[in-house]
Amino acid sequence: MSHTIEMTGVLAPRSAWTADRCTIARTLSVLSTRSAFLILREAFYGTTRFDDFAERAGLSEPVAAARLRELVDEGLLEREPYREPGQRTRHAYRLTDKGADLLPALVALMQWGDRWLDDDGGPVKLEHRDCGANVGVALRCERGHDVEPAEMQLRYNR
Amino acid sequence: MSHTIEMTGVLAPRSAWTADRCTIARTLSVLSTRSAFLILREAFYGTTRFDDFAERAGLSEPVAAARLRELVDEGLLEREPYREPGQRTRHAYRLTDKGADLLPALVALMQWGDRWLDDDGGPVKLEHRDCGANVGVALRCERGHDVEPAEMQLRYNR
Repeated sequence: MSHTIEMTGVLAPRSAWTADRCTIARTLSVLSTRSAFLILREAFYGTTRFDDFAERAGLSEPVAAARLRELVDEGLLEREPYREPGQRTRHAYRLTDKGADLLPALVALMQWGDRWLDDDGGPVKLEHRDCGANVGVALRCERGHDVEPAEMQLRYNR
Repeated sequence: MSHTIEMTGVLAPRSAWTADRCTIARTLSVLSTRSAFLILREAFYGTTRFDDFAERAGLSEPVAAARLRELVDEGLLEREPYREPGQRTRHAYRLTDKGADLLPALVALMQWGDRWLDDDGGPVKLEHRDCGANVGVALRCERGHDVEPAEMQLRYNR
């Protein structure tokens, strides 16, 4: 069975164009390292402090510092000062709306790993609080139809 | 507004555990480079030949060769010999079921880039063939409910 997506309009034939403005490529330029994804995972898990990001994502302090700075510069995290009694001022990192909108991408990567890389379906599961069922991502169109991969086609936008 | 996911059971408090078997991390070990994602994108677009992967993903031949080999080794692509009249035997690369199951992750990355990185909503759109509406990914539970990020919680699986 073929897994390819049909091209329509000016996109067929494929040899007439290349994906120069591809937004998958551009997203991966913003989020270019495994460690950036792991920092975001931790932010979704509620981590806010520098030391916790480094430890929980398994990163050295210089790597964690570089990634946090990049994610702040790209507008995915915001940095807020805080101060505990008797301590110097530190910073907390929290997801912006732009960063939080990457949740479906992280869930999609987790879902694939749970299915293909772990015998037990993964160590943790996202569940729907109301009904307890596991949550994943599904392909769906803006009119609310479930879409199978074979029912999609690619068209030129602008 | 908080964008974090609530932890339940043995996962609360967060400080009692780290994500050692995280399947996001393990997926990103399999798919560790931007170029691997771009090769997969091309496979979904119907590219099968070595030269086309290199050109269309904007990769040097050594990088394209290394990525294709890794993706075959990981079982995401399969390699089949073919031969055109008067030419030596070459190989075509096609998505396996395991590779094709990454489509929601690629669609999620594209959807985010279309929304946050491109003024025109991205150069190309996936559309539902039947109704013409744009396709994206949505969070949904196994019982078929649409799920908002704030309605999810994380539980230990095993």
